[in-house]
Amino acid sequence: MIDLIKTRRSVRKFRDTAVGDDELSAIIEAGMYAPSAGNEQAWQFVVLRGEALGEYLRLNGNVPRSAPAGILVCADRTREKYKGMNTAALDCAAATQNMLLAAHARGLGAVWTAVFDTAKDGVTALLGLPGGVEPFAFIPVGHYDGARGEVPERFDTSRIHYNKWQGARG
Amino acid sequence: MIDLIKTRRSVRKFRDTAVGDDELSAIIEAGMYAPSAGNEQAWQFVVLRGEALGEYLRLNGNVPRSAPAGILVCADRTREKYKGMNTAALDCAAATQNMLLAAHARGLGAVWTAVFDTAKDGVTALLGLPGGVEPFAFIPVGHYDGARGEVPERFDTSRIHYNKWQGARG
Repeated sequence: MIDLIKTRRSVRKFRDTAVGDDELSAIIEAGMYAPSAGNEQAWQFVVLRGEALGEYLRLNGNVPRSAPAGILVCADRTREKYKGMNTAALDCAAATQNMLLAAHARGLGAVWTAVFDTAKDGVTALLGLPGGVEPFAFIPVGHYDGARGEVPERFDTSRIHYNKWQGARG
Repeated sequence: MIDLIKTRRSVRKFRDTAVGDDELSAIIEAGMYAPSAGNEQAWQFVVLRGEALGEYLRLNGNVPRSAPAGILVCADRTREKYKGMNTAALDCAAATQNMLLAAHARGLGAVWTAVFDTAKDGVTALLGLPGGVEPFAFIPVGHYDGARGEVPERFDTSRIHYNKWQGARG
């Protein structure tokens, strides 16, 4: 597990090879096993391909264009149990991280991309999302194009504190 | 990987058995391999034990009291690259999920608990957090007390849409 966590990289270049709905479904399943506030599971998922994917990319231009498919993770505020705490976003963030790991475990590349506030209304209209369901993040999924990035050293003990800020290990 | 993702459960009852700093450090390391917005890695971690842990529990009472230790994940806004998008919280959420999975992979129990807004000032003062560093979530870590919860069925195909809301699989 820790090896998979450490070797996951954000993938932004994809080969022109299809990714089936079963693959995407398995990735989404991993998302559904994320923890959520009060087990509210305040998430929805929209698989985007073809024309819908193209329209999404036109509305929110920060996304690598070469992925054959992607998963839009949406916060479902109608399921939130604790109003005003934005727990749907936290549920979706945990689900998104599970999905990135699951894609990697399946040998697929993926990346967490933001849905900008300026694009949210357009995406909502494009996909016909109902009230309370808001685009949260978009995960392009595909096969790697070229070598995977090297694993950098990310462990930084200066970010770990003990019992107080800059407190030393006992 | 998918098995570990599916068998992770939120653990709230712990045995009275110590968890060493090396264990916690390995869990935090997994957190540091989470993706972050523009690779900003806007996180800090405070390990809490003993008196500091007791004071934390007094300030933020939603946390299981039997854990021998815990990790306070803090959002470091001084590292945010995109102001106003609350990316530090997303970085921390991804890191938190990695940490829950890493704890589970090591046979330890853990749970994502909220730091309530009403407790944040007190926790900040208690730990001497500098400006821009905000408590985000607290993860008690320990050994399971009793059996782990069963794995529920969480996969719900009604939450998966294709190319539009309630669009069917092609």
